[in-house]
Amino acid sequence: MKLLEERIRKDGIVIGNDILKVDSFLNHQMDIALFEEMGKEWKRLYNDVEINKILTIEASGIGIACIAAREFGVPVVFAKKSKTKNIAGDVYTSKVMSFTHGREYDIMVSKKFLGPEDKVLIIDDFLANGEALRGLIKLVRDAGATVAGCGIAIEKAFQPGGDNVRATGVRVESLARVASMDENKGIVFTD
Amino acid sequence: MKLLEERIRKDGIVIGNDILKVDSFLNHQMDIALFEEMGKEWKRLYNDVEINKILTIEASGIGIACIAAREFGVPVVFAKKSKTKNIAGDVYTSKVMSFTHGREYDIMVSKKFLGPEDKVLIIDDFLANGEALRGLIKLVRDAGATVAGCGIAIEKAFQPGGDNVRATGVRVESLARVASMDENKGIVFTD
Repeated sequence: MKLLEERIRKDGIVIGNDILKVDSFLNHQMDIALFEEMGKEWKRLYNDVEINKILTIEASGIGIACIAAREFGVPVVFAKKSKTKNIAGDVYTSKVMSFTHGREYDIMVSKKFLGPEDKVLIIDDFLANGEALRGLIKLVRDAGATVAGCGIAIEKAFQPGGDNVRATGVRVESLARVASMDENKGIVFTD
Repeated sequence: MKLLEERIRKDGIVIGNDILKVDSFLNHQMDIALFEEMGKEWKRLYNDVEINKILTIEASGIGIACIAAREFGVPVVFAKKSKTKNIAGDVYTSKVMSFTHGREYDIMVSKKFLGPEDKVLIIDDFLANGEALRGLIKLVRDAGATVAGCGIAIEKAFQPGGDNVRATGVRVESLARVASMDENKGIVFTD
């Protein structure tokens, strides 16, 4: 998606050759007009696919998922990262290794909100090692629901997560795929 | 707001006389069509007020803030609850006591995304003791920005947070104000 690639080139900050900061428009400050165009693009890509729910993960997936949900006309469920008093009852859980936080954590979704009738589009902001995405796919499958596909904003295509998930037969549509990046040479996107 | 009150009566679950679970439509599964009506109501209430940014807090404020931001045509910034490697540089911070989690935590916003030019609408899903809201107001003021007002989905009006914040001169518009609730007798809203 050209619009997102251009925005990443303009406002993304590369540190070393593997950290890409997009906090001015994607995951701390959020450009809602950009999110609307991203939602339309995912809808165009998945126009032929039956989807009745979007699943994302707190926190930075929630904004793009909610704006995209307007295009699909479906509710959003977000997986939580820690158990609070307010998430009572039965939950589906997955373990996820976070390279950002340097630790393993649990993600969970209440069993009330995922079931065999659900055809789920999974949305997240980043795909790199694929840990969070695999955890979300496991939640969907544990619920007996169907993974209709995944919609990712930025895929670090030089890391193995995206290809590993695609190799399992799951459709993954990333709006910007970074082939390589370097704080001096800039960002190269895949064709 | 009648639509939200009716939805709370229909799908909210009262436990004892102080826990209100609205996780089927507001803060775990999210009804985006409802969020759109809430966004329109905040826009109606604040139509006369200059607002150029919405501030919320992860995780359950993000969805309603992003949908509301479409009505205002402004970006959203969300305060983060824990410091990660990806939030580098200077941040504004507040300490917040969470009764849900039973502990104090820090919230923070990058200094890049709040400044003296900002007229900020603060949006959150719940207002009870007002801890999170006071923390967010402090972030805005530390940045030299202006609090244009607050938009809350559900205020527990039998707890002191809302009135305490209003007493400091900050405008708070809550779409549903719960006067009392009881798991047998149901929910009473303020007039």
